Amino acid sequence: MGIEPPVLSVLRWDGPPEGPVVVLLDQTRLPAEEAELVCADVPALVRAIRTLAVRGAPLLGIAGGYGVALAAARGEDVAQAAEWLEQARPTAVNLGYGARRVAREYRAAVEGGAGPEAAAAVALAEARALHQEDAAASGRMAQYGLELLAELLPDGGGHRLLTHCNTGALVSGGAGTAFAVALRAHREGRLRQLWVDETRPLLQGARLTAYEAGRNGMPYSLLTDSAAGSLFAAGEVDAVLIGADRIAADGSVANKVGSYPLAVLAKYHHVPFVVVAPTTTVDLETVDGASIVVEQRSPAEVTEFTTAQGAPVGGGGGRTAVAPPGAQAYNPAFDVTPAELVTAIVTEEGIISPVTGVGLAELCARSSQVTIS
Amino acid sequence: MGIEPPVLSVLRWDGPPEGPVVVLLDQTRLPAEEAELVCADVPALVRAIRTLAVRGAPLLGIAGGYGVALAAARGEDVAQAAEWLEQARPTAVNLGYGARRVAREYRAAVEGGAGPEAAAAVALAEARALHQEDAAASGRMAQYGLELLAELLPDGGGHRLLTHCNTGALVSGGAGTAFAVALRAHREGRLRQLWVDETRPLLQGARLTAYEAGRNGMPYSLLTDSAAGSLFAAGEVDAVLIGADRIAADGSVANKVGSYPLAVLAKYHHVPFVVVAPTTTVDLETVDGASIVVEQRSPAEVTEFTTAQGAPVGGGGGRTAVAPPGAQAYNPAFDVTPAELVTAIVTEEGIISPVTGVGLAELCARSSQVTIS
Repeated sequence: MGIEPPVLSVLRWDGPPEGPVVVLLDQTRLPAEEAELVCADVPALVRAIRTLAVRGAPLLGIAGGYGVALAAARGEDVAQAAEWLEQARPTAVNLGYGARRVAREYRAAVEGGAGPEAAAAVALAEARALHQEDAAASGRMAQYGLELLAELLPDGGGHRLLTHCNTGALVSGGAGTAFAVALRAHREGRLRQLWVDETRPLLQGARLTAYEAGRNGMPYSLLTDSAAGSLFAAGEVDAVLIGADRIAADGSVANKVGSYPLAVLAKYHHVPFVVVAPTTTVDLETVDGASIVVEQRSPAEVTEFTTAQGAPVGGGGGRTAVAPPGAQAYNPAFDVTPAELVTAIVTEEGIISPVTGVGLAELCARSSQVTIS
Repeated sequence: MGIEPPVLSVLRWDGPPEGPVVVLLDQTRLPAEEAELVCADVPALVRAIRTLAVRGAPLLGIAGGYGVALAAARGEDVAQAAEWLEQARPTAVNLGYGARRVAREYRAAVEGGAGPEAAAAVALAEARALHQEDAAASGRMAQYGLELLAELLPDGGGHRLLTHCNTGALVSGGAGTAFAVALRAHREGRLRQLWVDETRPLLQGARLTAYEAGRNGMPYSLLTDSAAGSLFAAGEVDAVLIGADRIAADGSVANKVGSYPLAVLAKYHHVPFVVVAPTTTVDLETVDGASIVVEQRSPAEVTEFTTAQGAPVGGGGGRTAVAPPGAQAYNPAFDVTPAELVTAIVTEEGIISPVTGVGLAELCARSSQVTIS
């Protein structure tokens, strides 16, 4: 178990004299460098979102909230700032949620007669509340998830968990979603091994999850995504834990491409496949898996290797072609796993298992999350 | 269908005045460059084998054969040359087979009273025979494979085939194994789409199979290995075609890591999973899948990206870390697919389906291949 590392400062607000500024851990420079990126105004934050210096659905919500607070503190047009932020990445639902939520509180304060400084303070308080709620949700998901694993798995020498993509502190105000469960298991002496899929094409597993696992002293090993099959066959995986980008009303789970093959392997090998996500990820307006629009990304992510985000060992940098000129590539960013392959969905409000549309609707109705439309 | 490209000169023998030399297509420089590597003596050829300038089980057998012929033509110690060649890559069964077979014919000629020149001519003739047999085996596998697809698949608008790793002309004296079936389908107007897994960690699919597909004008698309799941779910794969590195007596198939997850996906989606390999790949002395020793390779293949084998787009070269310093990695080179997940094994002697140990033994007994021990 050992000593916990300092909390990863992924995103923070600095007030005067340095601020007001939003300070980000620049995720494009990990794992080579832990560099801070200081955003002194909304356009700088929008750039950071677009370049993926800050990423991950829950964290984008928090960034959106602080961005609006930043506009308010600078006496700028808050409604315009909220719109810019929301449009920085139109597919990230949480980003618009955070920006709209803070902008609404600011507007209410102004309409209630508050002066600019007082209204800006209200906006900042709301962004901080959102940040804290997200951190608290991480903690509850971690606890529920660990309880679920204790129920599902034999009490052997600790759990051997396999995860995909990055779902830790780098995507959240707290310890994250699926990764937070593994981290809690580690801190309670229940983690034997964390298997980390590298997650092609953008290598979030190799670059970010391995970084977070190493920093927390967790026993882990990286693998190519397709080597997971050998681990299942050898009986080396007790459970799969993944996050989610969107959960449809029928319990279908859209997540980083590569999740569905793991679900099929888990089914074939009778291994639990567990999704960990806050209730804000559930989208009851998307009726089923087939209705989820999957983003198709640039073929260049597959046909070229970008070294700018890595650490040169023997020099170099830039882009390197790994396929012949003119090669076509199929590059979906996500895949969709149907409910029947999901053993359980763990949220901050509790666990759904088996996964059904009715169970999901009931759980969302219980959610304390404020709905902003 | 279109015009066939010039035959890929992967390996050839040049006699005087340039030779005797063995001329290789340097596979480490593909797809950026089609560069020839001229091996004027056995140590040069051994270096080429070790650095993977020449690779692929059947082709290594041919290289071993010509290597012995080269030693004979140069008046060198043929037995020593055969030993050096065999040990260049100890796990490649075919390499030792080719070297021993040609050395045996040379020895027989000498013992029969042939002078050095006549014995060298015998050795060269045997290497050429091996080369031609392998090319012929490719052709027969392609024909049997295409007939099998016609039986298994509906007569729609052509086949949509998914393949993994590289199994084409670059590994063979002919058109290869699994790739040869896809190429034959293409030439007969029966290929709608070839889905090419990139094949992490060494990207043989992106670097070599995409190159061969493009050069033959085949309709293809590259994908990350784990994006194959999305294609199965969308009903976009009619059959999976792969090669094999070793087939055990019970029909278990060892092949490039990532093959087993495809077999499980194929089973789940009721898609045929077809292995194409010459009978020399069957190893009746390995009783079952559990007895196959899987080579574990360097973690650096996963934790670092080597740009030396690619074409710099924006400059660069060398190695780039993609994981944090000290990251562990699990990196098996192969995985093992049990017979019950294999729809059929296509060999140059015919097709086995269902795959059973008895069927495999009978087929090998029919094989015209000379056994060299």
